[in-house]
Amino acid sequence: MSKEITSREEDYSKWYNDIVQKAGLAEHSAVRGCMVIKPYGFAIWENMKAILDAKFKETGHVNAAFPLLIPKSFLSKEAAHVEGFAKECAVVTHYRLMNDPKGDGIIVDPTAKLEEELIIRPTSETIIWNTYKNWIQSYRDLPILINQWANVVRWEMRTRLFLRTAEFFWQEGHTAHETSDQAVAETTQMQDVYADFMENYMGVKVIKGVKTESERFAGAEDTYTCEALMQDGKALQMGTSHFLGQNFAKAFDVKYQTREGKEEYVWATSWGVSTRLMGALIMAHSDDQGLVLPPALAPIHVVAVPILNKKVMERKPEMDAIVEDIKKAIQPEYTLKYDDDDTKRPGFKFAEHEMKGVPIRLAIGARDIDNGVVEIARRDTGEKQSVPIEKAVETIREILSEMQAGIFKKSTDYLNSHITKVDDFDTFKEVLNGKGGFISAHWDGTAETENKIKELTKATIRCIPLDAVEEDGVCVFSGEPSKKRVLFAKAY
Amino acid sequence: MSKEITSREEDYSKWYNDIVQKAGLAEHSAVRGCMVIKPYGFAIWENMKAILDAKFKETGHVNAAFPLLIPKSFLSKEAAHVEGFAKECAVVTHYRLMNDPKGDGIIVDPTAKLEEELIIRPTSETIIWNTYKNWIQSYRDLPILINQWANVVRWEMRTRLFLRTAEFFWQEGHTAHETSDQAVAETTQMQDVYADFMENYMGVKVIKGVKTESERFAGAEDTYTCEALMQDGKALQMGTSHFLGQNFAKAFDVKYQTREGKEEYVWATSWGVSTRLMGALIMAHSDDQGLVLPPALAPIHVVAVPILNKKVMERKPEMDAIVEDIKKAIQPEYTLKYDDDDTKRPGFKFAEHEMKGVPIRLAIGARDIDNGVVEIARRDTGEKQSVPIEKAVETIREILSEMQAGIFKKSTDYLNSHITKVDDFDTFKEVLNGKGGFISAHWDGTAETENKIKELTKATIRCIPLDAVEEDGVCVFSGEPSKKRVLFAKAY
Repeated sequence: MSKEITSREEDYSKWYNDIVQKAGLAEHSAVRGCMVIKPYGFAIWENMKAILDAKFKETGHVNAAFPLLIPKSFLSKEAAHVEGFAKECAVVTHYRLMNDPKGDGIIVDPTAKLEEELIIRPTSETIIWNTYKNWIQSYRDLPILINQWANVVRWEMRTRLFLRTAEFFWQEGHTAHETSDQAVAETTQMQDVYADFMENYMGVKVIKGVKTESERFAGAEDTYTCEALMQDGKALQMGTSHFLGQNFAKAFDVKYQTREGKEEYVWATSWGVSTRLMGALIMAHSDDQGLVLPPALAPIHVVAVPILNKKVMERKPEMDAIVEDIKKAIQPEYTLKYDDDDTKRPGFKFAEHEMKGVPIRLAIGARDIDNGVVEIARRDTGEKQSVPIEKAVETIREILSEMQAGIFKKSTDYLNSHITKVDDFDTFKEVLNGKGGFISAHWDGTAETENKIKELTKATIRCIPLDAVEEDGVCVFSGEPSKKRVLFAKAY
Repeated sequence: MSKEITSREEDYSKWYNDIVQKAGLAEHSAVRGCMVIKPYGFAIWENMKAILDAKFKETGHVNAAFPLLIPKSFLSKEAAHVEGFAKECAVVTHYRLMNDPKGDGIIVDPTAKLEEELIIRPTSETIIWNTYKNWIQSYRDLPILINQWANVVRWEMRTRLFLRTAEFFWQEGHTAHETSDQAVAETTQMQDVYADFMENYMGVKVIKGVKTESERFAGAEDTYTCEALMQDGKALQMGTSHFLGQNFAKAFDVKYQTREGKEEYVWATSWGVSTRLMGALIMAHSDDQGLVLPPALAPIHVVAVPILNKKVMERKPEMDAIVEDIKKAIQPEYTLKYDDDDTKRPGFKFAEHEMKGVPIRLAIGARDIDNGVVEIARRDTGEKQSVPIEKAVETIREILSEMQAGIFKKSTDYLNSHITKVDDFDTFKEVLNGKGGFISAHWDGTAETENKIKELTKATIRCIPLDAVEEDGVCVFSGEPSKKRVLFAKAY
């Protein structure tokens, strides 16, 4: 049937694209680099948003909305930021179209040129700090703990659905604090919030660490990151939280009167996760039959399929009643979809729901009813069992709970078995191009070595793990002394 | 104190701006025409979104996301649509900035010019119907019932916070159907969903009607509208639902195979409400002390203020306990904020929460505790009462329920007393410039008369009410025969 997808072994990248498209998650649009997120994909993203939004609010944050467009000059105000972000962005230069005087469609009205060009936000630090300037006079105005859910545009040349698109969706938190310590505490708090979400809802094991200077956010003093491994052994940066120091406060002249009556620049953080998490979710758990979803994020938890043909059509009301009872019993915690569309055959439905990663499939036929059972199939392991009807609800609850834990355990085991300690550069290359995953190696702390390794192997330092132990060693590349191992990997 | 605002009588427009700014709802940004929605304003908008989103889902719709950017050529495909929308929009012409070779900041890289300019969506019919083209082959693919929550940009020259901004936030539903009847039924269903939300949550009485041809959405066959009256007697279009016929299907060549095996163009609707509703909410109910909010949309329902001074400071734990009990008893249905910030005086807090439209203020002092009472003040009527502590929860629930009904009744009474039947043009002008509101008058059905009246009086036909009765009459302007009265008004 047409639902078949490329296997991971055959072509991992094609496998990913096949799932995204055949599970109805997203597709490319007519605009280069911009995606359409389809209803089923968007429902998963909505679940992610709802959980994250509640966590942000629990930690004292509120939502707001800042402009989509940023004056070009704002980008230049923070020196490192402009280098990182000003280059590849969508530039609005005009504000009007007109009918072509030659009668050939519509053209840009040359008289409607903006005095200063506007950039579609690639990230919002500049416009937000320009706004905070008017909101902050005294320590009494601090902290400011604001988040926004927004679309941003970065003009990427090579795009992949969810993982790297020109327009993408994200949340960006932007906070303002009295002291450096408070800002650092906020930064690590949000890293923890992210890690909790990634592990306990997405079921993806992550390593918490800090970026090296070269991999830092443009304008940050420190970038805290959550890094995961995909099934092809490549790393994926899941989300970052930045300690911005006083860089943006200085760029936008945002001072406050301290408790002691002095003037000081405000301390800042920013932190974000994006629709890239959808890419991570898909790649971390799915298999050659399609998407595998952790129950905590699945839009539909159970799909029930009646096994019907002309001979047993009169049994359908009994099936309807059994499914309805189960549906009512698991609501509202879990969602059950009853797929009794009689234009499709059960086998087709099975494949479709498998492709879409519905955690549990419940099938019920005439003989099942006679035997007082239903068939319950579990998406992640493929296990099927025949269960007495009166035990169905209990079994569903057990499986969903087990599946959430099981998916995370699998991800954790995979990660743990793909961190390889390496002490020489030949082994480094061998592991990188063989087994893949993270390479835990000593590094001399210089950007020069980091760049050289990247040039030679395409591996980058994903992070310096927060739990890295102090140990004496020598850099895997330069042989210079080192005190800590860092994690290298090829990355998305 | 600085919280004072201009009265409605003195300057209605300034009164509105004062409330928006002093209640912390929104402000102008550094980008012309784009607003910043501040946390308190955004919390109200989030409440609106959550309620509307649930209603859309109840009526079978799902959410998705379509690109922010639209190729210029797409806008030309539907003839009426391009006239209405192509003119004032933000045009992206380049995709890169570069360092100025003269060393003067950053400039647009002239080599990074797009082959085809992109427009920031002013509305998404074109990009969505270009996408639907690939999703629809057969009647089995219909209906498509999709909504998106999005930001859009229309380059407005004169902007007002919430009411008319260059960037605004909205939802846009875009549906595809097999038959004209089904599409019309969807259009009116969504008008009903909107009216229900506006009346029963926003507390704003609306008139449901149909637009005249001149006031229709560009590209629609029929535009259904909900129209309200603001306190200055001007009308405000609250939301519209469009029957698009087969116009966009023809423009983007979207055909489907019917149940009879024929090919036919698909029937369409689109419908939207925006952050303009925030403007309506503010203007419909507020008074000279500030914002008045219907409880159904208020982010905070009760603010509790302890009346403290040095002499009675030791009584604070008692106050804390009483407030905590009340808070627990009304949760999660209602939100209570305990404002015990000791850097601000009670009088300041009272004024602040009045400005922000918190429905109920609960004050508790040492003498109140001795008397076993709390003071409960109601924002909409200003009534205060002393209530036994054990009756506080019951009283709060009663007041909130009464207030929701009372606000709507006030709005309904105002609307009903501001629809004036007029049969001659002198009276028409007199009412329009005096009492204001809707003028119910006969109209000859021509765009010519409609335009003439607009030129002479600035009044437009807001709608032909759905419940207009057939009656013989003559046009208030031309004297030509007419069968129905329509509603004229000056409008936002």
